[in-house]
Amino acid sequence: MIEYAEASPEARAVFEEIAAVRGIKPAEVNNFWKAMARHPAQMRRIWQNMRAVMTPGALDARTKEMIYLAVSVTNNCEYCIASHGAQARKAGMTEEMFGELMAVVGLANETNRLANGYRVPVDAAFAGRRPEFGSLPA
Amino acid sequence: MIEYAEASPEARAVFEEIAAVRGIKPAEVNNFWKAMARHPAQMRRIWQNMRAVMTPGALDARTKEMIYLAVSVTNNCEYCIASHGAQARKAGMTEEMFGELMAVVGLANETNRLANGYRVPVDAAFAGRRPEFGSLPA
Amino acid sequence: MIEYAEASPEARAVFEEIAAVRGIKPAEVNNFWKAMARHPAQMRRIWQNMRAVMTPGALDARTKEMIYLAVSVTNNCEYCIASHGAQARKAGMTEEMFGELMAVVGLANETNRLANGYRVPVDAAFAGRRPEFGSLPA
Amino acid sequence: MIEYAEASPEARAVFEEIAAVRGIKPAEVNNFWKAMARHPAQMRRIWQNMRAVMTPGALDARTKEMIYLAVSVTNNCEYCIASHGAQARKAGMTEEMFGELMAVVGLANETNRLANGYRVPVDAAFAGRRPEFGSLPA
Amino acid sequence: MIEYAEASPEARAVFEEIAAVRGIKPAEVNNFWKAMARHPAQMRRIWQNMRAVMTPGALDARTKEMIYLAVSVTNNCEYCIASHGAQARKAGMTEEMFGELMAVVGLANETNRLANGYRVPVDAAFAGRRPEFGSLPA
Amino acid sequence: MIEYAEASPEARAVFEEIAAVRGIKPAEVNNFWKAMARHPAQMRRIWQNMRAVMTPGALDARTKEMIYLAVSVTNNCEYCIASHGAQARKAGMTEEMFGELMAVVGLANETNRLANGYRVPVDAAFAGRRPEFGSLPA
Repeated sequence: MIEYAEASPEARAVFEEIAAVRGIKPAEVNNFWKAMARHPAQMRRIWQNMRAVMTPGALDARTKEMIYLAVSVTNNCEYCIASHGAQARKAGMTEEMFGELMAVVGLANETNRLANGYRVPVDAAFAGRRPEFGSLPA
Repeated sequence: MIEYAEASPEARAVFEEIAAVRGIKPAEVNNFWKAMARHPAQMRRIWQNMRAVMTPGALDARTKEMIYLAVSVTNNCEYCIASHGAQARKAGMTEEMFGELMAVVGLANETNRLANGYRVPVDAAFAGRRPEFGSLPA
Repeated sequence: MIEYAEASPEARAVFEEIAAVRGIKPAEVNNFWKAMARHPAQMRRIWQNMRAVMTPGALDARTKEMIYLAVSVTNNCEYCIASHGAQARKAGMTEEMFGELMAVVGLANETNRLANGYRVPVDAAFAGRRPEFGSLPA
Repeated sequence: MIEYAEASPEARAVFEEIAAVRGIKPAEVNNFWKAMARHPAQMRRIWQNMRAVMTPGALDARTKEMIYLAVSVTNNCEYCIASHGAQARKAGMTEEMFGELMAVVGLANETNRLANGYRVPVDAAFAGRRPEFGSLPA
Repeated sequence: MIEYAEASPEARAVFEEIAAVRGIKPAEVNNFWKAMARHPAQMRRIWQNMRAVMTPGALDARTKEMIYLAVSVTNNCEYCIASHGAQARKAGMTEEMFGELMAVVGLANETNRLANGYRVPVDAAFAGRRPEFGSLPA
Repeated sequence: MIEYAEASPEARAVFEEIAAVRGIKPAEVNNFWKAMARHPAQMRRIWQNMRAVMTPGALDARTKEMIYLAVSVTNNCEYCIASHGAQARKAGMTEEMFGELMAVVGLANETNRLANGYRVPVDAAFAGRRPEFGSLPA
């Protein structure tokens, strides 16, 4: 990992942008970015994506962080569970919400395998449609 | 798959409960449950879990369905992407929300690997804490 | 895919070994091997591994096929779910056993995420031990 | 994590049920349940599922624990590998059985990718059938 | 999916950039981008990332496409296996190279589980180092 | 784990072969093999596969190790990231190549989910072809 004080000018600039957005000092930026700092162009690219994707839009910051956390738990990324768990909390996720999120994540991981293992064909009502246009049989 | 008309009495009872909750006819219940109907006790158990987990609580129905969809996309469960995509839409997910959800899912799958591949140690600020209690360095 | 009749001599020899073990004709060997036949040395290597690993030993054929199926369902390999589902059935897996296998696979996929998401530390009773030597607190 | 002594009455009741089934003291229940104890309703629900699924039926306890372990190894859940490795051992898995289980898990993870990467079409003999009804070409 | 002819001006511009880079007509751009065209800002963002990451640098185009293919096979993304298999071939991957790539992908997926299931501790020679600085015991 | 000095004659022979190939002492062989040494026949089988697959052929050693590393990062195998990161470095992977490898791995993990979540149909130009024969629309 590369600390802010030892980083290249390009990497330092990204540390500073992250710090400015979060209202912290550049030296307090979390470890993920210190690891990325070895490759400043990649660091900048990932940071720009993070900003573009995580800025509130149709979905608020809390919902976005909770989706991030759900993916990280499914993939078992220890670092991301820790960091995005913290960010979700900061964005308003309560203990009770976290419990419900975990229940959904667990259930989805279970039923994903049931659907695959039973080789369930997609219903005609869903077939050939992207998720946003499917509709339940009514 | 076992159709409602051919199901055992125990399985029929579950078809009827699902139909009642969704305001449809038992014969219109989606394929997942027709596959589960071969093992009525398992079918009932999974349905009871589904009800317990997906009923709105601290999180609303739309948020829960979106988390379910995010997990299903991460695991590449074609059936679940189709069915929960439809259910999320029914619960209010707009096309724009879907686009943002997909952007977060994609980014989280990317950064999960960056954190693992760079072997980033969990920050002291996050270590030894469950997600709900972590806090960002401030 | 390469059919037996069109395969190279090295690949043909493997088709014949597989057929002899299974009591079928070489032309009836399943598609997986027709795909592997493009690279005869790899085909032979994988077949030798399959034989070495799947031959009954401390575990009987049915248990081995069920473990194979459980992994394939977890990874969502459609081909392997179909082929090893068939082989497990042939080795004695009943419909009821299949239902119980799927229930365990579903539950393990669920609790794997609960353990990770809650960041549960390994109990002292389990720590630093390989699975075969762990013991429950007594 | 919440210790038995500090748990809510609802969570305590689950600790006591687990302890009774396992013939240990409630304070000796393993860490997974201490983590779940933060959300007593979820804790009870997961425990009820665990009981329903893991009780011997058409499959004996050892086979069920080995399937659980195979899934946990595939998903790389460190906690579950440790705890269900211990439980499989307790249910009769010998060192030799463990070695064979790992060989099958490794091979299945390998051939799952070969089948996917070579885009092998499902044989007509397997197509459109759930695993339990497939049959090998004969 | 949205065809080039029906796309918004923002999406059309991306279709045109992709076509220019590949020396094809905008209407011939592959389906992935037609799906992304629903959300033009995301489409542009992903395309910019694709360009930044896949342009030859320290690694040539063929090696990059082969790594992409290895990941897609591991994750079982049917679309990506098809499209990046084609692109790797176009960049010079021969049939023999493809066979060796698949052999490595299969073996890595196998030994990844062996290392996890046996709970192998990281050697002191590797510990606490990022991959690029580890060294084998000598 | 079983050290070389305490291993069975069959396992010792494998330690010695590994050491000879790598130009080190048998006691310096890395932990993975010490874990495998409990089951000497499996240890030999995996070693033979490793030799057959990783020996340079149409692909050189560095490319093979980089593919191995890309799979291990995708699966989050900490041990394999450490050991094959070291072996890739030894085979010539520079810091800059590692940065580009990680960028491709991250992007592929992202777009794999985008392709699945948008349910993108495989283009006619790719359909029904194995990766090595696909061709981009031209």
